[in-house]
Amino acid sequence: MPMIIDSHAHVVVPPESYKYMAELVASRANPTSPPVLTDEGVRKAGQSIIDIMDKMETDIQFLSPRPYMAMHSVKPALVGQLWTKHMNDLVHATVQMFPKRFRAVMSLPQYRDTSPENCLAELEFRVKEQGFIGCVINPDPTEGDGEAPPGMGDKFWYPLYQKMVELDVPGLVHTASSCEARLSYTLKFITEESIAITSLLSSEVFTRFPNLKLIMPHGGGAIPYQMGRFRAWSIRKGEKFFDDQLKQLHFDTTTYDKDALELLFKVVGPNNVLFATESPGTGSVTDPTTGRDYDDLKPIIDSFSFLSEEDKTNVYECNCARLYTRFKNYK
Amino acid sequence: MPMIIDSHAHVVVPPESYKYMAELVASRANPTSPPVLTDEGVRKAGQSIIDIMDKMETDIQFLSPRPYMAMHSVKPALVGQLWTKHMNDLVHATVQMFPKRFRAVMSLPQYRDTSPENCLAELEFRVKEQGFIGCVINPDPTEGDGEAPPGMGDKFWYPLYQKMVELDVPGLVHTASSCEARLSYTLKFITEESIAITSLLSSEVFTRFPNLKLIMPHGGGAIPYQMGRFRAWSIRKGEKFFDDQLKQLHFDTTTYDKDALELLFKVVGPNNVLFATESPGTGSVTDPTTGRDYDDLKPIIDSFSFLSEEDKTNVYECNCARLYTRFKNYK
Amino acid sequence: MPMIIDSHAHVVVPPESYKYMAELVASRANPTSPPVLTDEGVRKAGQSIIDIMDKMETDIQFLSPRPYMAMHSVKPALVGQLWTKHMNDLVHATVQMFPKRFRAVMSLPQYRDTSPENCLAELEFRVKEQGFIGCVINPDPTEGDGEAPPGMGDKFWYPLYQKMVELDVPGLVHTASSCEARLSYTLKFITEESIAITSLLSSEVFTRFPNLKLIMPHGGGAIPYQMGRFRAWSIRKGEKFFDDQLKQLHFDTTTYDKDALELLFKVVGPNNVLFATESPGTGSVTDPTTGRDYDDLKPIIDSFSFLSEEDKTNVYECNCARLYTRFKNYK
Amino acid sequence: MPMIIDSHAHVVVPPESYKYMAELVASRANPTSPPVLTDEGVRKAGQSIIDIMDKMETDIQFLSPRPYMAMHSVKPALVGQLWTKHMNDLVHATVQMFPKRFRAVMSLPQYRDTSPENCLAELEFRVKEQGFIGCVINPDPTEGDGEAPPGMGDKFWYPLYQKMVELDVPGLVHTASSCEARLSYTLKFITEESIAITSLLSSEVFTRFPNLKLIMPHGGGAIPYQMGRFRAWSIRKGEKFFDDQLKQLHFDTTTYDKDALELLFKVVGPNNVLFATESPGTGSVTDPTTGRDYDDLKPIIDSFSFLSEEDKTNVYECNCARLYTRFKNYK
Amino acid sequence: MPMIIDSHAHVVVPPESYKYMAELVASRANPTSPPVLTDEGVRKAGQSIIDIMDKMETDIQFLSPRPYMAMHSVKPALVGQLWTKHMNDLVHATVQMFPKRFRAVMSLPQYRDTSPENCLAELEFRVKEQGFIGCVINPDPTEGDGEAPPGMGDKFWYPLYQKMVELDVPGLVHTASSCEARLSYTLKFITEESIAITSLLSSEVFTRFPNLKLIMPHGGGAIPYQMGRFRAWSIRKGEKFFDDQLKQLHFDTTTYDKDALELLFKVVGPNNVLFATESPGTGSVTDPTTGRDYDDLKPIIDSFSFLSEEDKTNVYECNCARLYTRFKNYK
Amino acid sequence: MPMIIDSHAHVVVPPESYKYMAELVASRANPTSPPVLTDEGVRKAGQSIIDIMDKMETDIQFLSPRPYMAMHSVKPALVGQLWTKHMNDLVHATVQMFPKRFRAVMSLPQYRDTSPENCLAELEFRVKEQGFIGCVINPDPTEGDGEAPPGMGDKFWYPLYQKMVELDVPGLVHTASSCEARLSYTLKFITEESIAITSLLSSEVFTRFPNLKLIMPHGGGAIPYQMGRFRAWSIRKGEKFFDDQLKQLHFDTTTYDKDALELLFKVVGPNNVLFATESPGTGSVTDPTTGRDYDDLKPIIDSFSFLSEEDKTNVYECNCARLYTRFKNYK
Repeated sequence: MPMIIDSHAHVVVPPESYKYMAELVASRANPTSPPVLTDEGVRKAGQSIIDIMDKMETDIQFLSPRPYMAMHSVKPALVGQLWTKHMNDLVHATVQMFPKRFRAVMSLPQYRDTSPENCLAELEFRVKEQGFIGCVINPDPTEGDGEAPPGMGDKFWYPLYQKMVELDVPGLVHTASSCEARLSYTLKFITEESIAITSLLSSEVFTRFPNLKLIMPHGGGAIPYQMGRFRAWSIRKGEKFFDDQLKQLHFDTTTYDKDALELLFKVVGPNNVLFATESPGTGSVTDPTTGRDYDDLKPIIDSFSFLSEEDKTNVYECNCARLYTRFKNYK
Repeated sequence: MPMIIDSHAHVVVPPESYKYMAELVASRANPTSPPVLTDEGVRKAGQSIIDIMDKMETDIQFLSPRPYMAMHSVKPALVGQLWTKHMNDLVHATVQMFPKRFRAVMSLPQYRDTSPENCLAELEFRVKEQGFIGCVINPDPTEGDGEAPPGMGDKFWYPLYQKMVELDVPGLVHTASSCEARLSYTLKFITEESIAITSLLSSEVFTRFPNLKLIMPHGGGAIPYQMGRFRAWSIRKGEKFFDDQLKQLHFDTTTYDKDALELLFKVVGPNNVLFATESPGTGSVTDPTTGRDYDDLKPIIDSFSFLSEEDKTNVYECNCARLYTRFKNYK
Repeated sequence: MPMIIDSHAHVVVPPESYKYMAELVASRANPTSPPVLTDEGVRKAGQSIIDIMDKMETDIQFLSPRPYMAMHSVKPALVGQLWTKHMNDLVHATVQMFPKRFRAVMSLPQYRDTSPENCLAELEFRVKEQGFIGCVINPDPTEGDGEAPPGMGDKFWYPLYQKMVELDVPGLVHTASSCEARLSYTLKFITEESIAITSLLSSEVFTRFPNLKLIMPHGGGAIPYQMGRFRAWSIRKGEKFFDDQLKQLHFDTTTYDKDALELLFKVVGPNNVLFATESPGTGSVTDPTTGRDYDDLKPIIDSFSFLSEEDKTNVYECNCARLYTRFKNYK
Repeated sequence: MPMIIDSHAHVVVPPESYKYMAELVASRANPTSPPVLTDEGVRKAGQSIIDIMDKMETDIQFLSPRPYMAMHSVKPALVGQLWTKHMNDLVHATVQMFPKRFRAVMSLPQYRDTSPENCLAELEFRVKEQGFIGCVINPDPTEGDGEAPPGMGDKFWYPLYQKMVELDVPGLVHTASSCEARLSYTLKFITEESIAITSLLSSEVFTRFPNLKLIMPHGGGAIPYQMGRFRAWSIRKGEKFFDDQLKQLHFDTTTYDKDALELLFKVVGPNNVLFATESPGTGSVTDPTTGRDYDDLKPIIDSFSFLSEEDKTNVYECNCARLYTRFKNYK
Repeated sequence: MPMIIDSHAHVVVPPESYKYMAELVASRANPTSPPVLTDEGVRKAGQSIIDIMDKMETDIQFLSPRPYMAMHSVKPALVGQLWTKHMNDLVHATVQMFPKRFRAVMSLPQYRDTSPENCLAELEFRVKEQGFIGCVINPDPTEGDGEAPPGMGDKFWYPLYQKMVELDVPGLVHTASSCEARLSYTLKFITEESIAITSLLSSEVFTRFPNLKLIMPHGGGAIPYQMGRFRAWSIRKGEKFFDDQLKQLHFDTTTYDKDALELLFKVVGPNNVLFATESPGTGSVTDPTTGRDYDDLKPIIDSFSFLSEEDKTNVYECNCARLYTRFKNYK
Repeated sequence: MPMIIDSHAHVVVPPESYKYMAELVASRANPTSPPVLTDEGVRKAGQSIIDIMDKMETDIQFLSPRPYMAMHSVKPALVGQLWTKHMNDLVHATVQMFPKRFRAVMSLPQYRDTSPENCLAELEFRVKEQGFIGCVINPDPTEGDGEAPPGMGDKFWYPLYQKMVELDVPGLVHTASSCEARLSYTLKFITEESIAITSLLSSEVFTRFPNLKLIMPHGGGAIPYQMGRFRAWSIRKGEKFFDDQLKQLHFDTTTYDKDALELLFKVVGPNNVLFATESPGTGSVTDPTTGRDYDDLKPIIDSFSFLSEEDKTNVYECNCARLYTRFKNYK
């Protein structure tokens, strides 16, 4: 039986951290002190996740800060820097408290259209000093307030890719919030993932960084559903067939719908999909048609007869382990 | 056997119109004269479509100007106004030439974040004087250059909705181009349709305009693939179940992938889907796995055993006829 | 002995409201639900203030939402609207719970450089339906992110003044946060109060609205300390002497320094000063030189031999009662 | 008899290139492929020019892309880059096809206020590999949409001047289109040439680049007509007399009016004027007063009795040959 | 012998007004008092002009404030408003002092892209109360700092035209300064006049306001020199011949060059040209080739043998008198 | 008896310099020539100051250009550069004329948010070649038109600090004008001084530049009056007590009010205060309550019984001499 690795989940925020976040925004980081993370607060928050994991038969989760709270566009930059630090501290404390059930994935102190070079020190520190195994990359840290930075295929991102490859850590592509009234953050996740995928696949990124590992969550935005459009383009342009281009990327299962998951597996293949639930989170609501939460995805995947046992082992464990090389000693 | 109505297709542009478009942009509408549309030019362009229709067994197409060419953000506004007029003239001439094979759908002279009130005269003229049966609405006429206008759920759009209801014409939601280097126009179609759907469904638009008819092309952007996320939100917010909300909108089949079409029908139901190919267009490339063009969708839909004959009749003919009430005398 | 009215104090925010604020910012109001204010939460928060009041011998406080948390510049506007509503609800609930110890002053849903007309409905509702007795006015709701709206002497503000006069409620002039890295919110209070004072005094506001009542907190920003400069100007311009102009405004004692308070009383006179502590707040820190908190101002004022007993009664009670006419039955 | 060199003319655009331009704008360069230039298309376009040349007794034309079509401000930058490449290819193909009748002058992939350093590779390639003999410089590639780059006297342009001097190629100063509704591209030519002249003459450009060769087309904008104003300034500032400053620049005859041409020759002298017609182009319309096209300038110049034969030889041939040193073997 | 009317001249600024201007800018209109205009100051300044007039045999000048000093773009708007008032006062005082030698033309308190409606009160007051006979209109009050207002053919300007027609006063089209480093104010005069002419002639302004009278100074910018270009366009567009269109406008002789003046008279005809010198001003420098000042234009015009005596009388007197109907009792 | 050094005073501007300033703004530095400073003009202006000094018993003044006239935000940059040069020339000429009564302090050619590196050459030249002893630093050269540069605690300013330390010259922190209608320049002095103080004290500037000497004029803005607020923060943050932090800065007495001066001395101590009057200036108006001008501060300071004779000697002479080490041979 495979180990069940939930490769994409977010930390539970204790009340004092919510207060800190509110004060950070209100004071615009002038001069708020971070809360002391108490063992009890961390334990309670962590245990609340573990209770869900146990119910869902998840062995281990890769925990990162909650992306929609990243405040990457809040002025001045110090707000997001302090918050990122605090959230990565919280992730670290949670992993330290429950070393058998969690691994740490960090968020980065990105800020609007600033070069990601300002993130390299945090990336290196968390990986080398605290054992973090991956990072979250926000492809639009403006959060929709102003002109977005260049697409993920642009050289703008090379300093970050360079350091990720050097440290051998994968990146989970995940936006934060959305300042546009017409576009909720939850849909912005989807639109920006779609943009990131096409920007990357029409670029030289994987030629220059063949060992770069990027994961597209939420089933890859709109792309697997809109393949016809991109297949036709790839043929017309005389490029590699779009389905084959897509294999350079990895995807996860945080999409909460059986039909969508089925489509995802068909399109990208079981070797490029990582099991993930983002639980507790958006999908933690009972599906009235099944009586289970939307994010309780293991029964759905287990039920897919078109996947072999080896496929499922890859999805639950091996694909993830292959990407996250720093996830050591995992058995 | 149902009539096969292709509800979403675009006019073929004759060479002199390409030249006109190039000159319009180059001169920024100062002072270009539109080309005279010759019978021969119109006939040749129209016939090239009919040849495809015949091959695909399409009885009639609803023709509109090619959306990605709308130039809604090109400065000054006169560029797009002149072009829109010329393209609607071309549509009209083509329909006049082949009255049994085409019906006319117009584009609107939208401009950046200007109120759609500037479109009402064109809308009224084309419907009342020339028998146009619908219109295309671009939810982001800035084309990504600057701050988008409010979402389609906002009162910003009410003057247009009011007039559409008054004239009883449906609107096909379709963006134009994309000025962002990171985002191709073809993907912008998808992202903006997703935004339009969620903006509309979280608004009072259909309460205020119960007879408003809006069609989401390309399989509805990302939404049918991302239902889990929106279902969970609808339950958490205590709203009507998202699947039911979605029935207020209509969708079409211009998505060029069997699996995607299957998902679309499952999610929104056969009564809310209109047959459409956008052919000739993006999908007019031979699928190497089938030997047929990607946009040759009828064989795919015919093959869907989960659709009844009545379902198929609805998809091919009745749904469309129900929406486009001005499509008269059609049998 | 006078009643001790603390005319400027802010509500204590319960943990669930901090969480709500964090979620509002993170989700950009899409789609957060406000927390249910529990009796226990409100009681605990309110009692924590009363304990301080009792220690400081304060009879009653005029409670408003905490200004630095107003989020008047956070995009989109709905964030601040929902938060303002929640905070005014909290103020109301606290006053309802402890009707003998508190009166309610509201904050307004101002947004960047939007006309204050969008605040009139809230102002009217809270006063007429819930007995609020005053409001807080933020002279720069952009919070320093972009061009500020016109100064408080400009006709931009007339709709608000009109409604305030109509409802006979005073306004406490108080900014929110500051998005500029170089300028803390606490200093922005001071700079904007100074600007508001000079803008008002060089305008026709009090000619047009002779019954408008405005209170400048924190000792009036920099103005009482910088009188020489403005006296000279008033003489040079042949205007009314600046000291006399200043009497059109009211000030409060929330400035936490004996020397500064002494200067304030000398400059504006005891009839234009309202007792206030903003406690608990910025000044709730023990002064190492006195052993009392900086915001424990009553002993300082009591010690001022240059104030008569009548002066002190005015400062503690009568000036305030005169302005806040809706503070009924107060003895 | 002198060789008649028409030093300023633009390529005729074949229909497939118009279509390409329309598609480039519509797709915003995502992902259109350039048309294949067919021998027949190039021959037909080229021959249409030669027919005019023969009628006008022109021996050879220096052909460049049509400036008003340069799309230097269209977002994203790739649009203009691809188009510039295509147009320079067309120029090259036309010259290759008719080597006795044309020489090639290139346009540059300028983009808004981007440094002209991005043009150096194209400049070098076309000169060294394909024998181009000059280039067109657009002094305002923003085309009026946003703040213009610094004037041509500014060091912003030095990298381009450096390379032009190194390759020994002259530059024809010529704007593209105009995005302002109030200002047609044809008048923008004139206003920007005037600005370029005064910016250059009040700078150190010719001190630093004594071998830089710049040509002001269209009779030099407004300057020869407005000499009084600039003469007075030059005297008042104690500078070299303006008429003498002007001799650092070269001018051409594309101004289509006998009186204007006469003024031009008087002001700048026959040694600084190059014969040019820009034909076919703006002036290719029959003058009702003469029965000849406005751009048929040779008869006018021939008729100028104030010019000696040597003057005319200089104007028709020698001035041009002196500047365009790469125009070899010309007799 | 005709009366010699110099229809375009500017007031001489006394030292205390320079000081006022410097203080207005420095204080940004906060709170400078205007200088008292002393009889002596006004007399001295006025006499300095009269001395020149006498030398040049000018009978009367139409005096307006010096345009390049208008400060129409200086923030805040009050700077320009106060300065315009002061300058119009100075003009009025000068005319009152020397009623036989001057008539008053006002400048307007235009501000950036603000509607000219803010100028109507000043226009009416000066005409009705103080006998001003015309006004100066700045077609770009942004002075090049930001996006210009619409061209003079746009309905933006209708409120001003309406009032001018109602009061029967002509407008002299004249920009102020130029904030662009690359473009001197003196050349901006020329470029903006050219833009104004083409904007007006391609508009409906003279259809809607047939009695509107506009004067283009400085010989009409570039237009008379660039006729070929516009003639060709007018023919190609099937419009009225450009030379005939041009007759709807009036021009003046402030261009300081014999050849240019000759061209001007030929192009627009002697009935549309007003004598003017703008003296003392830009042209008040000795021409080394003649020994006379550049702006001493009467000898040049007198020498034009192609003008009849009646032509010259029209130029010196009658054209001007016909336009400036409020210039009464002038003989 | 101490020498009475007035450490903060501004040059009197002769009429021809006012004219030059007006012309610089009007022409936007294109192409104005500076006036020749005549001995008589300089002597008259200088003597007018000396007459005041004699009346006030001032021995020597440190003269700088008048800050509110600096035009640091006027476009283009050349305006301010030329003006700064002229004003520093005027200061130098005045000091040369009256070497026993004045010393020279320069202003810098700052421009909007441009790095202060553009000021280093002027700083070095004036100190080394002309004996200037200090400089004025404008913390917001945008003058409120656009986003301010970073606070004075930011590394943005390090190049300037580095050079000041190298040359051992103090800096007087003093803004110029204010483009915001709501904020007069005189109040902007105050608000920006307050911002500069808090920015510096919360930075590493004095750690990195321990020998940097900065003087806050006008009694230090609002800070000495608002100590309570900052004391509480310093304690809460566990920093050095705010009163002690403040001793890193120096202040001057240009605040024109006895009570304010008394507060200043109490708060910052007599060793950190420099005598200064800024006379003639804002305070040069007769105080109706004393019959003396507001800026005649010596009698007020003399009357302070809480200051010892040594204190007063420090204030009048020694503090200043200690900071301005280049003020040599002063007895």
